[in-house]
Amino acid sequence: MKISIVGATGYTGAELLRILASHPAAEVLYITSESQPGTDINEVYPHLTRFYNKTLASLADLDKIAIESDVIFIGLPHGHAMEVGRKATAANPNIRIIDLGADYRFKNHDVYEQWYKVPHTHKEAQAVYGLTELNRSQVREAAIVGNPGCYTTASILALAPLVQHKLIDLTSIIVDAKSGVSGAGRSLSLGSHFTEVFESVKAYNVAGHRHTPEIEAVLGELAGEELVISFTPHLIPMPRGILSTCYARLKEGVSPEKVDEAYDSMYGSEYFIRLLGRGGYPATKNTRGTNFCDLGWHIDKRTGRVIAIAAIDNLVKGAAGQAIQNMNVMFKMEERTGLDNAPLYP
Amino acid sequence: MKISIVGATGYTGAELLRILASHPAAEVLYITSESQPGTDINEVYPHLTRFYNKTLASLADLDKIAIESDVIFIGLPHGHAMEVGRKATAANPNIRIIDLGADYRFKNHDVYEQWYKVPHTHKEAQAVYGLTELNRSQVREAAIVGNPGCYTTASILALAPLVQHKLIDLTSIIVDAKSGVSGAGRSLSLGSHFTEVFESVKAYNVAGHRHTPEIEAVLGELAGEELVISFTPHLIPMPRGILSTCYARLKEGVSPEKVDEAYDSMYGSEYFIRLLGRGGYPATKNTRGTNFCDLGWHIDKRTGRVIAIAAIDNLVKGAAGQAIQNMNVMFKMEERTGLDNAPLYP
Amino acid sequence: MKISIVGATGYTGAELLRILASHPAAEVLYITSESQPGTDINEVYPHLTRFYNKTLASLADLDKIAIESDVIFIGLPHGHAMEVGRKATAANPNIRIIDLGADYRFKNHDVYEQWYKVPHTHKEAQAVYGLTELNRSQVREAAIVGNPGCYTTASILALAPLVQHKLIDLTSIIVDAKSGVSGAGRSLSLGSHFTEVFESVKAYNVAGHRHTPEIEAVLGELAGEELVISFTPHLIPMPRGILSTCYARLKEGVSPEKVDEAYDSMYGSEYFIRLLGRGGYPATKNTRGTNFCDLGWHIDKRTGRVIAIAAIDNLVKGAAGQAIQNMNVMFKMEERTGLDNAPLYP
Amino acid sequence: MKISIVGATGYTGAELLRILASHPAAEVLYITSESQPGTDINEVYPHLTRFYNKTLASLADLDKIAIESDVIFIGLPHGHAMEVGRKATAANPNIRIIDLGADYRFKNHDVYEQWYKVPHTHKEAQAVYGLTELNRSQVREAAIVGNPGCYTTASILALAPLVQHKLIDLTSIIVDAKSGVSGAGRSLSLGSHFTEVFESVKAYNVAGHRHTPEIEAVLGELAGEELVISFTPHLIPMPRGILSTCYARLKEGVSPEKVDEAYDSMYGSEYFIRLLGRGGYPATKNTRGTNFCDLGWHIDKRTGRVIAIAAIDNLVKGAAGQAIQNMNVMFKMEERTGLDNAPLYP
Repeated sequence: MKISIVGATGYTGAELLRILASHPAAEVLYITSESQPGTDINEVYPHLTRFYNKTLASLADLDKIAIESDVIFIGLPHGHAMEVGRKATAANPNIRIIDLGADYRFKNHDVYEQWYKVPHTHKEAQAVYGLTELNRSQVREAAIVGNPGCYTTASILALAPLVQHKLIDLTSIIVDAKSGVSGAGRSLSLGSHFTEVFESVKAYNVAGHRHTPEIEAVLGELAGEELVISFTPHLIPMPRGILSTCYARLKEGVSPEKVDEAYDSMYGSEYFIRLLGRGGYPATKNTRGTNFCDLGWHIDKRTGRVIAIAAIDNLVKGAAGQAIQNMNVMFKMEERTGLDNAPLYP
Repeated sequence: MKISIVGATGYTGAELLRILASHPAAEVLYITSESQPGTDINEVYPHLTRFYNKTLASLADLDKIAIESDVIFIGLPHGHAMEVGRKATAANPNIRIIDLGADYRFKNHDVYEQWYKVPHTHKEAQAVYGLTELNRSQVREAAIVGNPGCYTTASILALAPLVQHKLIDLTSIIVDAKSGVSGAGRSLSLGSHFTEVFESVKAYNVAGHRHTPEIEAVLGELAGEELVISFTPHLIPMPRGILSTCYARLKEGVSPEKVDEAYDSMYGSEYFIRLLGRGGYPATKNTRGTNFCDLGWHIDKRTGRVIAIAAIDNLVKGAAGQAIQNMNVMFKMEERTGLDNAPLYP
Repeated sequence: MKISIVGATGYTGAELLRILASHPAAEVLYITSESQPGTDINEVYPHLTRFYNKTLASLADLDKIAIESDVIFIGLPHGHAMEVGRKATAANPNIRIIDLGADYRFKNHDVYEQWYKVPHTHKEAQAVYGLTELNRSQVREAAIVGNPGCYTTASILALAPLVQHKLIDLTSIIVDAKSGVSGAGRSLSLGSHFTEVFESVKAYNVAGHRHTPEIEAVLGELAGEELVISFTPHLIPMPRGILSTCYARLKEGVSPEKVDEAYDSMYGSEYFIRLLGRGGYPATKNTRGTNFCDLGWHIDKRTGRVIAIAAIDNLVKGAAGQAIQNMNVMFKMEERTGLDNAPLYP
Repeated sequence: MKISIVGATGYTGAELLRILASHPAAEVLYITSESQPGTDINEVYPHLTRFYNKTLASLADLDKIAIESDVIFIGLPHGHAMEVGRKATAANPNIRIIDLGADYRFKNHDVYEQWYKVPHTHKEAQAVYGLTELNRSQVREAAIVGNPGCYTTASILALAPLVQHKLIDLTSIIVDAKSGVSGAGRSLSLGSHFTEVFESVKAYNVAGHRHTPEIEAVLGELAGEELVISFTPHLIPMPRGILSTCYARLKEGVSPEKVDEAYDSMYGSEYFIRLLGRGGYPATKNTRGTNFCDLGWHIDKRTGRVIAIAAIDNLVKGAAGQAIQNMNVMFKMEERTGLDNAPLYP
């Protein structure tokens, strides 16, 4: 399978390259970078030495790239991917596209334009939302997959059984999420400066983070009605990992066993979802470097709430890993191909 | 002022010693340790070299300690402090006691016994809850102060203005708290082992942490009615700092300005509370090594919730610093004496 | 290939299990623990969930284990492995043994007994020192391999070309090494307590670390004469990684090109050694989770010294990875089988 | 005492402000920044809230600043401080200047120009090198003090007794130093990006770091002859702290007691130097946030070397703290004024 990566020098691109290096069916054809075209990838990322002998190409060659590739991963900032999607599809109608940004995540383009402040320029695309465990059959046939955000993957996976089985009050959902710093990318900023981040934790973008409408859209679809949630992201002094702690009020009369059943029935046969059960405590470290999502849930009898907790590696299940999981599905391969490694612990 | 510290070798004790070393009116008389009596304190804590020439005493000498001291800080595990309190008071009726554990925090001893699983043996003590900003005048006259827990300090300070001014639905309070590892103390455990904690975040004691009833009791008193909250602590890979992210539903018609006023009127003249205002983002690092509590709050119009965030250093405002703040109040000194240093940043 | 791991619950054992989970020819048969026999491995190491369904066995079953296994990895403290080696060999003369401790590393048992303070009880064993790149042909035929220490692997790989090509003054060798905390194992100690290690660096065991005689023995053999070195280990606040900074005085007239040639000729065709060349700066992070050793060297013209720097992951090339590399060699498999993954970065 | 800080927004400037906030005789008059003039300092450094109500001034007002100030601290990049020094001295001949950069550190301007690649433009200045413990009496009278580099402070303090007492072979000195990331400053760079630094250690500037000639000059003066050393700095994943591990060959017949005496006689009465003695292991954490330098030394009998180890906080004893120590000396105050706090531990 011939693979190209457009926008390969961010952490998401590097993570795609890391995983694809061990994928038995993957042949990486082109990798592009608009900031450093012509540079050897091993110069940008010395850790990849031994795995790629490639010079960074540029979007100027997109037509050629699209024609020669079976699948393109896009690792560009939002607003840019849809242009690439449109042109690549035009150049090669058989191309499969997996976008790791936000451009193809929303069915409702108004929501996209409202939160992302740019006009959507590829509305005719038949894009599918790539949260594999929820949308597997659609992903299989999709020409374009909008790969989910990191926070959204963890948060939706934690809440989906509760919503789908109608166990919770939909007006009561609160997601308090904690993320490592790699989510902020490789671009320099004071907020990602080592000495500023170290031994500190803080919230950011309260009531305004763009993953909020994404979570709402997917959960709303599962619920069959619109809903709003409170979502608060926090920055944690570590590179990888997301923990989503999700709160909701249980409906009257919902027993703990009902909650257990919801998780078991929805995820019991999912390889990449490891159920720690009621009372379980997921830790991000147990998922480091893997495509696993660890899930635990708790019933607070005194308050009538359920607290569901999900842990993922934001760069794997929250980005590159799930993208490759989707690719495996799209190309009818065993879903865990290239993704079946144990976590790096400790 | 002659000061003794009973249970001085935990992190709370070491932090008392650190701060008292710069306190102009403090004379540290005895420091005790049941695990290492007879040892030089500089051997236990080499960083204190130059500040103390003291050998660790033992509780066997409690009578003498109580008689010679003006004030005793207790840094023992819960269940042990009340015995010390009883005996020290008997030996010296004028002694002032500040307990950094839970034994003297609860007016309702039933709640204490239910959550801490030990009988209370000093119920006749007229103990005062030492959240200085809320209880200053009572602290001034108190013989015994129950110094608040670290999580509780941050959480109560964040929520008190909303509760006191009756701005929120009392059934809707959720506190999602994040703490550094020093809160777990210096005792060895796999959960505090460097390689296990590093690059990981997880929740613990969901719906069961003992700081829950403490927060409920204090907020309930402010509200004039009983209430229950959801409280979830998380372990963050850093030694110091607590961030409490608090969620509540605003009552119908409460304007953002009303919320601002509640914070301003309650804390506007408090030195140790730095109001970052509506939209502000406290970061634990900005409080490192100090007695400050930084507060910010946010209104989520879409969901009708207020999100209030507090950052403290768990060992200072969350333990030793507030204890010394209370001591200053009890002995009619300027409240910030010995506590007026700038944070260690970065 | 049927594999058993004796002493599987330390970090080295866990790392063997992590790597073997992706090794196509490996079948893990027994894993033992004397501290937790009968426990499910996933309870000890939740991150391994999905990879092993095994209960921990005990050394009481060593005979059975030896008879059914093709190879045994030993992850026990020094002094214990040689007993296991002796008994396993007696039970199954065809067994291959790879010991990750010190018991089989020394040809000269006097040196072992002097530094490790225990009598050697399996002197008749024909053990081979398992630094694969130096001893490959001997490893291939070995019944018992003494797998090198973590510091020694990095330090010897950095210095071997200089010694073998007789480019340096043998009396001038100084190794200043920096290690992550996982090298201290999973046993609890104040020195591995999170809050103690964090934001601190210090040396330990100056002039007395047990990896010193191991480095000396191997380099001495390469040199054809005895030598002593200064070796100083340091503890770095991170879990994984070793950086060895090695100093030596160049012999009169040795040109920089001569030095380059020594590295190229010795390692030019070694897959797991990545030469960063003269002026190169290895970083431990670039090797994280892999069996690579990154090497760079520098000539200080002002002082006439060469500074050679090696970076490895102490748990992989410094322990479990090299052990599996040796296993691959011993069983005539492609040497990089199961070890050919890209580093986890960032 | 009226103090101004020119170049106040780097970490060194922020650290000066932190310490001066607790200095009883300090009145901070002007603080300047060329990048953010007109900005409130609390906006740049929110942790300083409560301590300064100041807007950043600019160098355009240097004359006024110099005339109104008793002392100016300069926190500018090398090459810029000497211009400020020249102009400030012209405007106010009584001004005292403490430069935290390199411009005034070298008696031999040729060495400065060779390593720093800029012409020296204030050669007529009678600057004194401000390693307080070595140069106290000169500092007292100095108009301009060149405050030492961070690496140099630790390295010189570790080696000075050995050099002064002629105990070591001067051609054998090697300094292997480890530094936290704050030494690289607040300017953004990939090398200080959180995710790149975390869980990694590497060397940099081998055989070329600019602190090398500074160490050589000072030690050479103590020795009474020129000398060259090997100096290797390393980046450690923590914000603060430097550990210098220094190696040298002992001269024939030098006993361990002779070494002990050298340290005791040179530093026995120095408050800020804490001697851990022969066999002692300084840890950077024990000095965090303080002006202490912890020293330990070891004799390696097998190799005839002495290994001397120094730990400091690079921003305090390695920069702002020593600068204030020098100010205290220059203004005839008790040397530890404003600097006598216990370390922040853990």
